[in-house]
Amino acid sequence: MATAHPRTTLKDLAQQAGVSITTASRALADNPAVAVRTRQKIQELAIEMGYRPNAQARALQSSRSNTIGVIVPSLINHYFAEMVTAIQVAATKAGIGVIISNTNEDPQVLNSSLDFLANQGVDGIICVAHEDCATHLETLYKQGTPLVLIDRELPASQIPTVISDPEPGMRAAISLLKPAEIGYLAGPQSTSTGRNRLAQFLEICRKQALQAQIYRGGFTQAEGFEGALELINKGITTLFAGDSMMTIGVIQACHQKQLVIGEDVSVIGFDTQPLFSLQQHPLTVIDQHVAEMAEKAFSLLLEDSPAALLNSIPTSLILGDSTFKKGHNHG
Amino acid sequence: MATAHPRTTLKDLAQQAGVSITTASRALADNPAVAVRTRQKIQELAIEMGYRPNAQARALQSSRSNTIGVIVPSLINHYFAEMVTAIQVAATKAGIGVIISNTNEDPQVLNSSLDFLANQGVDGIICVAHEDCATHLETLYKQGTPLVLIDRELPASQIPTVISDPEPGMRAAISLLKPAEIGYLAGPQSTSTGRNRLAQFLEICRKQALQAQIYRGGFTQAEGFEGALELINKGITTLFAGDSMMTIGVIQACHQKQLVIGEDVSVIGFDTQPLFSLQQHPLTVIDQHVAEMAEKAFSLLLEDSPAALLNSIPTSLILGDSTFKKGHNHG
Repeated sequence: MATAHPRTTLKDLAQQAGVSITTASRALADNPAVAVRTRQKIQELAIEMGYRPNAQARALQSSRSNTIGVIVPSLINHYFAEMVTAIQVAATKAGIGVIISNTNEDPQVLNSSLDFLANQGVDGIICVAHEDCATHLETLYKQGTPLVLIDRELPASQIPTVISDPEPGMRAAISLLKPAEIGYLAGPQSTSTGRNRLAQFLEICRKQALQAQIYRGGFTQAEGFEGALELINKGITTLFAGDSMMTIGVIQACHQKQLVIGEDVSVIGFDTQPLFSLQQHPLTVIDQHVAEMAEKAFSLLLEDSPAALLNSIPTSLILGDSTFKKGHNHG
Repeated sequence: MATAHPRTTLKDLAQQAGVSITTASRALADNPAVAVRTRQKIQELAIEMGYRPNAQARALQSSRSNTIGVIVPSLINHYFAEMVTAIQVAATKAGIGVIISNTNEDPQVLNSSLDFLANQGVDGIICVAHEDCATHLETLYKQGTPLVLIDRELPASQIPTVISDPEPGMRAAISLLKPAEIGYLAGPQSTSTGRNRLAQFLEICRKQALQAQIYRGGFTQAEGFEGALELINKGITTLFAGDSMMTIGVIQACHQKQLVIGEDVSVIGFDTQPLFSLQQHPLTVIDQHVAEMAEKAFSLLLEDSPAALLNSIPTSLILGDSTFKKGHNHG
């Protein structure tokens, strides 16, 4: 399982604490068979001594549940439902069960879920992080809970992470859209995905000397809808949505304004789902290859010393029929 | 929490077993603090004596986690993603966390999930049942695990259950479609939802002397797609899909055949989701009121003696623009 490189051994830790190796191992797994004060003492000592369990030490733990936890910020968002399902497919092949927690983007729910899963002795956790939970996540990881972050990275984190690289997909998309003025619907700047995609968008526009208008919102259908209406009302006819949920909001706004996507407006979306392919003009979208991200995260969780902390999967463009043909007279 | 009506008390059970009330309570909660053999003995005795814990007995349990488990057969299916999210909204209001398990319709995964959740001491489980797991579910419930079934009922079950009643929505839908010959895409007959909806469909058609063709498949987009193509190739231009996933498959088949829904074909779907409302002609759908079902299931889980075992929420019809106008010349 993915934990930082081992230095101190479990034996060192047990000797220092004056307990058996089994007790030390159970204490680190927060096993209630060990008294709360002893557990705390050993966990604190483990951090002090820089102890990180290795696979062998881990095998000593009596609490193997053959179950991992997955924490996502939404299940209504098809991208995360697909992510969870793909992790589960990989885990099932390895004979491992999956328990899921949905935080609805609430950091308090994320913190409670981390505690619940760690205390119940799951063998590892794959988590879409919230930056308000960074300290909690880093501490859990240092204490020996195998952990992998997916989709969102934490600044300067020591936890193995899988993200997608927005650049290749976004560059290909913007090449399709130019020379129009592009309205970009940016996600929350409190997430690495929101920040990275906006930065890439601005950088690509700068390089290609393109005009752009930015709407800053959240990763929700309602924000995508509001943002698209605002941009359309400013006369923008080329819209680029920065995530799945905002893409749905853009489609909703176009339907409400009775604008035919691919004829009256150009639209680029994020991620793949039947809603995007089953339009009158199927949407052109950035594909994050979520199943590949999920498999990578699961395999990282099983590794003792991941080769790289930050693993980036390149995005690509899936061509639909939702952008103006070249030569179209842009408003 | 929803458990069958109490007869024998925990005290009776403890006396008969020759253990303390606390030990009896812990044994019923499968708490590892009690020896495995003692736990088994007390659990068997509880079934023998017809013991069902009441709220007071339950309060004695030391394993309260303030967390419930929710088990669904899919998360890619937007209907179940909405169900889980609505249960979580209700639970969060009550200060209770939710842990989710997705079975991908696999009864073995369902059985493992039930064991994992029960052994980890969740305070109750809301479960979309699989008929192959009926015995396991009934046993867990009799042993005192608070349990509520949702969406699918088990034949002759003693477990409190929330289902939707397909009749009102389906009757209104068929009134819109007649006098055309209707192609119905039926779900799996191993689920109560698949059976009940097909039975209602046939009964309504019989009463109204309507012609019908039935395609029997699974609750998947692929089956909906195959079934719709088969019916369209037989010359059927009025399609009624028996669940969310099959509705997506029907839309996919119409797009592939370049048939405009609401113009070239009449389509009725099941459930609400952006994919259905954001079509060129928004879909007319049967609404199961999944949020209401979820809230009812959560409140049943908190009740000691539910007034009714089977709770049925009536469906209704949401009018879109996906069926032929009256007077249209049906193929």
